Amino acid sequence: MRSSSLALLTDLYQLTMAQGYWKSGMARYEGVFYLFFRQNPFKGGCTLACGLEEVIRYLQEFRFEESDLNYLASLKGNDEEPLFGRDFLAYLKNLRFSCSLHAVPEGSVVFPHEPVLRVQGPLIQAQILETPLLNILNFQSLVATKAARVCRAARGRPVLEFGLRRAQGPNGGLSASRAAYIGGCAATSNLLAGKIYGIPVKGTHAHSWVMAFHDELDAFIAYAEAMPNNCVFLVDTYNSLQGVKHAIEVGRRLRLRGFDMVGIRLDSGNLAGLSRQARRLLDEAGFPQAKIVASNDLDEYRIEALHEAGAVIDIYGVGTRLATAYEQPALGGVYKLAALRPPGGQWQYKMKLSEQPLKTSTPGILQVRRFWGENGYEGDLIYNELWPGFQTHFSTFDGRSCNFAHLSSKDLLMPVFEHGKQVYMPIDIHHTRAFASEQLALLPDKYRQLRPAAVYAVGLEPRLKTLKEQLLAEVSAREINR
Amino acid sequence: MRSSSLALLTDLYQLTMAQGYWKSGMARYEGVFYLFFRQNPFKGGCTLACGLEEVIRYLQEFRFEESDLNYLASLKGNDEEPLFGRDFLAYLKNLRFSCSLHAVPEGSVVFPHEPVLRVQGPLIQAQILETPLLNILNFQSLVATKAARVCRAARGRPVLEFGLRRAQGPNGGLSASRAAYIGGCAATSNLLAGKIYGIPVKGTHAHSWVMAFHDELDAFIAYAEAMPNNCVFLVDTYNSLQGVKHAIEVGRRLRLRGFDMVGIRLDSGNLAGLSRQARRLLDEAGFPQAKIVASNDLDEYRIEALHEAGAVIDIYGVGTRLATAYEQPALGGVYKLAALRPPGGQWQYKMKLSEQPLKTSTPGILQVRRFWGENGYEGDLIYNELWPGFQTHFSTFDGRSCNFAHLSSKDLLMPVFEHGKQVYMPIDIHHTRAFASEQLALLPDKYRQLRPAAVYAVGLEPRLKTLKEQLLAEVSAREINR
Repeated sequence: MRSSSLALLTDLYQLTMAQGYWKSGMARYEGVFYLFFRQNPFKGGCTLACGLEEVIRYLQEFRFEESDLNYLASLKGNDEEPLFGRDFLAYLKNLRFSCSLHAVPEGSVVFPHEPVLRVQGPLIQAQILETPLLNILNFQSLVATKAARVCRAARGRPVLEFGLRRAQGPNGGLSASRAAYIGGCAATSNLLAGKIYGIPVKGTHAHSWVMAFHDELDAFIAYAEAMPNNCVFLVDTYNSLQGVKHAIEVGRRLRLRGFDMVGIRLDSGNLAGLSRQARRLLDEAGFPQAKIVASNDLDEYRIEALHEAGAVIDIYGVGTRLATAYEQPALGGVYKLAALRPPGGQWQYKMKLSEQPLKTSTPGILQVRRFWGENGYEGDLIYNELWPGFQTHFSTFDGRSCNFAHLSSKDLLMPVFEHGKQVYMPIDIHHTRAFASEQLALLPDKYRQLRPAAVYAVGLEPRLKTLKEQLLAEVSAREINR
Repeated sequence: MRSSSLALLTDLYQLTMAQGYWKSGMARYEGVFYLFFRQNPFKGGCTLACGLEEVIRYLQEFRFEESDLNYLASLKGNDEEPLFGRDFLAYLKNLRFSCSLHAVPEGSVVFPHEPVLRVQGPLIQAQILETPLLNILNFQSLVATKAARVCRAARGRPVLEFGLRRAQGPNGGLSASRAAYIGGCAATSNLLAGKIYGIPVKGTHAHSWVMAFHDELDAFIAYAEAMPNNCVFLVDTYNSLQGVKHAIEVGRRLRLRGFDMVGIRLDSGNLAGLSRQARRLLDEAGFPQAKIVASNDLDEYRIEALHEAGAVIDIYGVGTRLATAYEQPALGGVYKLAALRPPGGQWQYKMKLSEQPLKTSTPGILQVRRFWGENGYEGDLIYNELWPGFQTHFSTFDGRSCNFAHLSSKDLLMPVFEHGKQVYMPIDIHHTRAFASEQLALLPDKYRQLRPAAVYAVGLEPRLKTLKEQLLAEVSAREINR
C-alpha cells in the first residue's frame, strides 16, 4: 500500500456528490444510511458479519491528506476545467469523521434485508463512506460465512486456511485469513496474518522440498533432522502410499530421538480411499496418533462428499475456494439512504424504489430486535428507533405471520462511534471467533445447514411496514404514475 | 496494511523449508523455479500477464525486519519448543534478495505450460518467494485477462471499472483497478487507484443523490448547478424514461449556461430496449452527442447479449464481475522447482510428477521463444537456455506437429533482476496498457474470441521433451515402480 491515507479509497462519484451537496447548501444536512444485503451467500441460511474492526481502524484514520487534495485538484471535468473547486477542497481538508455509527458485533449471524451497520451524521461524510464500508464488510463477511460452512462440513475437525497464493492480492489474502479464522478456521498458512492478527499459523513442507533431494526418503530424513518437532510429511510427490511408508520409516527414527511425527498430508488422488489406506498403514506401524491432513481444492461440498465416501481425515487444508469464496466471490451488500433532515428540521424518510419489491430499501432510523426462546434464535424484527415501543406481531419478508410477544429479545445494532468518538472497543480476534461460534450455535440447525431447510424469520415492525408502503405509493405517484 | 515489511507475506511452510535447507547444508544451493499456469481462465484462448511492477516493488523492499524476526521467534513447534532457531533467524536478518529474475513484460499474451517468470538464485530465497509471486501475478493476470475479454465484447466502446465496493478488500480493489486498466478499461471509479497509478477516473452521482432531493428533476437541477462540467445523469432511480426526460430538461438549462450534459446512465431494467428509447429521446431533443452509459452486473457475455439485442450503448460500466473475476475468481498459477545445483556442482534437472501427464512440470532453465509470421503470432517453443541452438520442428502439448523454421522469433522472458540488481525499469502504466493492446492485436483472432476457435501452439523443444521423458522414467523407476 503506497498511500498512508485511505480517504481516497472510494468512488469518484462519492466526492462529486459531496461537492454537489456542499454547493447546494446541504453540507449541514444529516443523513442516515444503512448497510444490508439481499441474499445469504452460497444459497445458505445465514451470514456471519465480519470486518467491523477494520472499519473502525479506517474511520479512526479517516482524513484527506495534502497529497489526496493535490490529486483531487488535478482532476478535470468534461470541459478541461477543474472538477473540484478550491473552497470545497479546503472543506475536505478540515473534514474529520464526526458521524455516529451503529453496527452488529463481528461474528453475529445476520440475515437479508436487515441493517448490519448504520451511519448517521453529516450527509457528505455518510455518503463518502459508502464505498470503503462496503468494500471491507462485503468481503470479510463473505469469507467468514464460507469458513463457517467449511468448518460445519468438517464436523469438528480442524480446518486450516491455505489460500494466500490464490487470494486476490496481498490484502485480499490478509483479510481472507482474518475472516476465515473468525468464521471458524483453526489456523492459517499466512505468516503476515499471523503476525498482524495473532492467528495461529500452520505448515511444514511442499513438493519442492521432496524434489530438492535425491529421493523422497532422503527428503523426509533431512526434514526430520532439521525440524524434528514439526513433521507433517507431504506424501504425494510421487506415490502417496509409498510416501506414507517413507513417513513411517522416518517416524521410527524420530522416536529414537524422542520426537513424534505430527502426521502426513495427502494432496492429490482419491483422498477418501488413500486416507483409509494411510490410516491402516500408520496404525499398523504403531502411529495411531499421527494425523492425516488432506488438501486439494477442497470446499464444504467436497468435504461432505469425503465424509460420505468414508474418508478418515483428521485435519482439512482449504485454500483457493475459501480465500476467494470461489463459488460466489462477492457478497452483494448495499448501502442506502434511509432518512435525511435539514439543520433544525424534521426527518424525511427515504427509500430506494425498484421494479422488484424485494429490492426496495426500508426507510427509517433502523434497528434490529432479535427474539429467542428455548430453541435459540427465532426471528428478527426491523423497527424505527424514533418510535417508542413496537408490536411483536408482524409478517416476514416472505409473507409469514409471526408473534414473538412471549420471547426474550435484544437489539443487535450497538453504538460504535458517537459523533465521531469511538465508544466501542473491539474484543480480540480469539474472542470474536468464539463469539461467532456461540452465535452460530444459538441459531437452530435448520437455518445453518449447507442447504437450509427453513428460512429465518425477518420482518418489518407493522408501523414501519405501513410507512414503507405509504412512501412507496407517494414516490410512485410523484415520479412514475404521473 | 499495518506492517511496513511484507517479507512475511508468505506461507509458513516456505520458512520451515528454508530452515530445513539451511540446516541441511543447502543454503548455498542454487535453484531455478518457474511460474506458469495450466489453463487459460474463463475457457478463453489466451492470458494477459500482469503484476510484474508490483513484483519488482515487492522484491526491492524484501527484507525481514526486527518485528518479523521477533514474531518468528515466538512460534512454537508441536512440542512447545521454538520452531525457528536463533542462528537461522540471524541468517534471515541478513538475507537480501540476490536472485536473478526473468519475466515476460506486463501486458504480454501468454499461454498454458510456459514460464511467465523464472527465478534463479539461492534455493532458500527462491523458495520463500513462491507465495508472494503467485499472489501478485495470479490475481492481476486474472483481472487483466477478464478486462481484455470485457473490452473485446464492448467492440471499441469504453469500459469503465466500477468494482471497488465488491472487490476483495482494499488492496483487492486497488490491484483490480490497475489490472483492469492494463487489460483495456478506459477508467476506474476508484480514486485511490487514480492517485497511486495515474489511471483516469470517472463518475458522477448515485441513486442516493436523487433520493436526497424532493424529486428527480430537483436532484438533476442541483447537480447541474454544482457540477455543470461533469453531468452524467443516473436516470433509473424511479423510472428510466422519465429520468431521460428530466435529464433532457436539465440539459437544455445547462446549454443556456454554456455547458453540455455528458450523458445519462441506465442501471437497471431492459438495457437494450431502454437504451434505444433513450437514444431516440435524446436525439429528438437535440442531444445526439449525449452518451448513454449502461451498468448493472455486466460482463463480457451480457455485453455481447446487449449487442445482439440491438442496444445503443456508448460506454459500459463494469464492476463486481470484473473486479472479482466472478466467473472464475482464481487463476491456478503454480511455481515449480526445475533445476538445482550444489555450490560448484552440475545442474540437476527437477520435475513435479502427477498422475495426469499434463500436470507434470518441465525441467530446465526454461525460456520461451515466440514465432510470428504475416498473420501474427503462430506459436511458442519452450526450450532450455543451457543448450545452444534449438530445433524449430516440435510437437505441441496437445500433440500437433509444428515447424516454425521460416518464421521470425524472439525470446519472451527478459532479465528483470541480475543477482539482486534491478536491470529492468517498468514502462509507465499507460504504455503497458498500449503494449497489451498491441500484443492482443498480434494474436490471430481465432485465439482471442470469448470461446476460441483454435488452441495456440505451445510445445517443448525436442531435446527438452526427451529430457522430460527420461527424467519422468527415471523418477518413476526410483519412486513408484520399484
